[in-house]
Amino acid sequence: MIRRQLKDIAPVPVSAGEKTEMQMLISPDEAPHFAMRRFTIHPGGFMPLHTNKVEHEQLVLEGEAEVVIDGATYRVKKDDVVFIPAGVPHSYKTLGDTPFRFLCLVPNLEDEIILVENA
Amino acid sequence: MIRRQLKDIAPVPVSAGEKTEMQMLISPDEAPHFAMRRFTIHPGGFMPLHTNKVEHEQLVLEGEAEVVIDGATYRVKKDDVVFIPAGVPHSYKTLGDTPFRFLCLVPNLEDEIILVENA
Repeated sequence: MIRRQLKDIAPVPVSAGEKTEMQMLISPDEAPHFAMRRFTIHPGGFMPLHTNKVEHEQLVLEGEAEVVIDGATYRVKKDDVVFIPAGVPHSYKTLGDTPFRFLCLVPNLEDEIILVENA
Repeated sequence: MIRRQLKDIAPVPVSAGEKTEMQMLISPDEAPHFAMRRFTIHPGGFMPLHTNKVEHEQLVLEGEAEVVIDGATYRVKKDDVVFIPAGVPHSYKTLGDTPFRFLCLVPNLEDEIILVENA
């Protein structure tokens, strides 16, 4: 059993992103099937177009961003639910002056981030 | 790819709970490994002590509750992270006048809710 508070979980920089950090809420070492992470992209930050080998189950917690998924652009905000299947190219860019925070859960499987060249 | 808003997802009553409802954010039919659900327990509501055959990965989104996990009592609120392993008895009881809302993710495996007799 685990009980912890978000504020006590140290954020780590995300090298694939700019002004982006990640907190591991429930790690793959702690849970048998999937991991719970929270990402924060600070104002002016972004994550470039990339693919993963695993799917993402996401809930936006705070802020706003322009998200590109499989070539389509969405503007997302608090309480938006997003599912990105494995292998689908996606990117994030913050909008406005507040941090964009979202929960992103992934299965406990090997992943690889591959950057996609923009056309 | 899925993008939807929480407010558009119809809540369904949870028969094992009192004044409790669930919204399916990302269902086991949509995602390959795990499902994302949001539970709301309205003021005065509760879920009695029970076990599941699957683990729970939870994040509290709103409100406060008294949660019993494996015999220990916790007071939880927004931004608390909770991991309940499979088979561990747990219960929820709202505190205060606001709904208690939490995200609860489970693997795509057969589950069964078994109520635990209170001592």
